Amino acid sequence: MSPIELNARQDKILQIVKEKGPITGEKIAEQLNLTRATLRPDLAILTMAGFLDARPRVGYFYSGKKTMASVAESMMNLKVKDFQSLPVVVSENMTAYDAICQMFLEDVGTLFVVDEHSRLQGVLSRKDLLRTCLGTQAITKIPVHIIMTRMPNIVYCHKNDSLIHAAKKLIERQVDSLPVVEEREDGLEIVGRLTKTNITKAFISLSEINDL
Amino acid sequence: MSPIELNARQDKILQIVKEKGPITGEKIAEQLNLTRATLRPDLAILTMAGFLDARPRVGYFYSGKKTMASVAESMMNLKVKDFQSLPVVVSENMTAYDAICQMFLEDVGTLFVVDEHSRLQGVLSRKDLLRTCLGTQAITKIPVHIIMTRMPNIVYCHKNDSLIHAAKKLIERQVDSLPVVEEREDGLEIVGRLTKTNITKAFISLSEINDL
Repeated sequence: MSPIELNARQDKILQIVKEKGPITGEKIAEQLNLTRATLRPDLAILTMAGFLDARPRVGYFYSGKKTMASVAESMMNLKVKDFQSLPVVVSENMTAYDAICQMFLEDVGTLFVVDEHSRLQGVLSRKDLLRTCLGTQAITKIPVHIIMTRMPNIVYCHKNDSLIHAAKKLIERQVDSLPVVEEREDGLEIVGRLTKTNITKAFISLSEINDL
Repeated sequence: MSPIELNARQDKILQIVKEKGPITGEKIAEQLNLTRATLRPDLAILTMAGFLDARPRVGYFYSGKKTMASVAESMMNLKVKDFQSLPVVVSENMTAYDAICQMFLEDVGTLFVVDEHSRLQGVLSRKDLLRTCLGTQAITKIPVHIIMTRMPNIVYCHKNDSLIHAAKKLIERQVDSLPVVEEREDGLEIVGRLTKTNITKAFISLSEINDL
């Protein structure tokens, strides 16, 4: 049997839960001086691996030694919401030039384009913008709604979807990023962004847990 | 116990190995009308999960029921060479415009720049090219050696590195792709390309295997 090897933050979380559990995610975050969002991946992985159990409105508690029944089954329990990033949105009339600047400012590879009611209208990738740079029209003149991918061709996911399912969408549809959305009467509200970077981080997290 | 759930190709590989093992990777590929390269990820995952054993110069054989000792430990055995893609290289004097065209033609997000002896000189990402499009100089005039990331700032990996280690480099160094290289007397020879897409595919493969 190999010793438990967790990253330093996962180790601290386990200690806090052992001492003070049941304890909510918010309280754990407070103790570590981190936001709840930063802790989500660690809590999801620790729960998947069977170190922690979570009960709604009660919080996390230490579940003692438990072997992982099946990797594949446990992986299906990882959710999009625990690994997603913040979305960056722009309006339909922004120019391609300004969109490129926005990508650099926000350090993202995909922008989501919304209408005046903040509903999803399009997705803009680095690839879309590079294609535009090849054209003869000035990128300071072309509005993004001309070059973006628009509904119904946008591939998206929901925050409670399994992470595996969303990863398959990224590969099958050959996109770098999915908007995480919620259905509203007047369209889709964007609540997150799921990228291959998020999946790569989840892959690394998996390798940092060991069975007991 | 849940039943074995493998993707269709992994299932066929197992059947072939059960019937004809020990059998080489080349022979398995022949029977499935696929290249050896296409089969690499499936063979790596099946071996990691304990379904197959491999012996050098003999081939693969069915290893019967075996439980996965530790996910994390097994994951460390996944190698870069089993998941890497083919590299796309360009010469130092190609223009930014032609480099963008090349990216679209080859459908890749990163180009590797080589000197006249085919040794690695630089890495060119979509981000590097987009930045250039923001400038005042014509992209049909600027050669890629002006805008590429060059040695010693290039992050690279080797084909026998662990996939997890390479994934960590992608995240820590904030790049989309690593050249897979071999050291030569006169520099680095490029033998592959490892991207977040490769890691995302490996993540999906992991979810498709089950313990016995």
